[in-house]
Amino acid sequence: MKTVSTALSHGGVQGVYSHSSETCQCDMTFAVFVPPQAEDGPCPVLWYLSGLTCTHANVMDKGEYRRMAAELGMIVVCPDTSPRGDNVPDEPDNWQFGKGAGFYVDATQEPFAKNYRMYSYITEELPALIAGNFPADMNRQSIFGHSMGGHGALIIALKNTDRFKSCSAFAPIVEPSTAGWSKPALEKYLGADATVWRQYDACALVADGARFSEFLIDQGSADGFLDEGLRPWLFDKACSEAGIPLTLNMREGYDHSYFFISTFMDNHLAWHARRLAAD
Amino acid sequence: MKTVSTALSHGGVQGVYSHSSETCQCDMTFAVFVPPQAEDGPCPVLWYLSGLTCTHANVMDKGEYRRMAAELGMIVVCPDTSPRGDNVPDEPDNWQFGKGAGFYVDATQEPFAKNYRMYSYITEELPALIAGNFPADMNRQSIFGHSMGGHGALIIALKNTDRFKSCSAFAPIVEPSTAGWSKPALEKYLGADATVWRQYDACALVADGARFSEFLIDQGSADGFLDEGLRPWLFDKACSEAGIPLTLNMREGYDHSYFFISTFMDNHLAWHARRLAAD
Repeated sequence: MKTVSTALSHGGVQGVYSHSSETCQCDMTFAVFVPPQAEDGPCPVLWYLSGLTCTHANVMDKGEYRRMAAELGMIVVCPDTSPRGDNVPDEPDNWQFGKGAGFYVDATQEPFAKNYRMYSYITEELPALIAGNFPADMNRQSIFGHSMGGHGALIIALKNTDRFKSCSAFAPIVEPSTAGWSKPALEKYLGADATVWRQYDACALVADGARFSEFLIDQGSADGFLDEGLRPWLFDKACSEAGIPLTLNMREGYDHSYFFISTFMDNHLAWHARRLAAD
Repeated sequence: MKTVSTALSHGGVQGVYSHSSETCQCDMTFAVFVPPQAEDGPCPVLWYLSGLTCTHANVMDKGEYRRMAAELGMIVVCPDTSPRGDNVPDEPDNWQFGKGAGFYVDATQEPFAKNYRMYSYITEELPALIAGNFPADMNRQSIFGHSMGGHGALIIALKNTDRFKSCSAFAPIVEPSTAGWSKPALEKYLGADATVWRQYDACALVADGARFSEFLIDQGSADGFLDEGLRPWLFDKACSEAGIPLTLNMREGYDHSYFFISTFMDNHLAWHARRLAAD
């Protein structure tokens, strides 16, 4: 692991790191904020998964999470959204597929299967790296994300129930199998058989029996992707039918941007902190 | 004035606007945050001047000012740092001069005199535009900034004592006439006669008799520009000799970045709010 940069911020350290990823067969970059409380011992870990077109840097720059994370004593890990590099297959003119659009799946289709393994990267390789290099209490982990990263957070929580104390999302894609901006990506990464996609689809996972303690979702009412791409009511219905508590906050007038995310960041951090503190 | 974008954030509206500037003879872009309190009447105005290489967008994205500005009911105006456009003379390879480096002066030398009039733009044209288009209480204005923009805030306050209730800065250039990264710019904008530069030099202005109620400066001790470019002790000495109260907070381990600025943004906003509320 290589340190790209570190800066003191809000009493903690905001770092950027890179490493050669075995899982993705390329160099990967990620951001970690370590709060001041880490001087006194390991801190809980909150994973933030970003949306389409983002790298680790967008939420690090615009997410406004450090003040509250420093107050609550939480490590915040912000991974990239796809494999990177000149040798990674891509569709440069398509912002909904390829680099910046890994969709947190393990691709099975060529030419993507070699690099596009973001599910395993986020759930296996990167956690091991975090555990080995940061003052992290890996018994206390939670996960959240935005848009495509909200999708990632939901499916990763549903598939790793025992690992995460809590899961929340800002404007998540809840049923990627049927949304216009995600369906073509799932087909290219996973093949034409849509039954295979269900393991990476939050609504389908719940319908197929996956369970989690509870969810928190914030969604802007003025989000341009609401009706076609996001449709949180589908997840509301799925959770309701499965008996999973879901708090769905519709935020009047808010859009899909970091201006929205940063507004409700404090609420999400505090919500996770309460659940990370519980035994 | 044209609205480029608006987004709800922290209960207020973060907008980006552009207009054809008579002063700079080009199109100019700026950001304004209007807090929710503006629904009940005009709000005080806090001007934030940015540093070298920045546009209006850097502090808007990374400054983390909206939460506290919304709490305190302050309009925050973030102008650009220079004239812009293909017709504006520039030194593209020099980040310390030309576009992104207006140094808040009115240039007198060719070919810069036509466009590089940031002092008049910030003190005359843009205030009139703000007064005419936003719910702004122009009788309650304060000003702050970072680095080159900290320089801008200090000189503009010193030259417009009656307009501003308070002035603060993050890591300001306090004596641009003698710092390596600003001296060549002053020479190109203002000519070889260094006595002319004194009207745009905070230390020289104070030495020459300018006064202001008090100043607040935060400066990171790990700032790579501290010893050569910033040197706040020069302003400390000048203020001390002139009897101007200056609170100079040296922040151990902090650098020159927005990770530093955002850490102390709340303090500065609250400090200005108290002075804006005073009669």
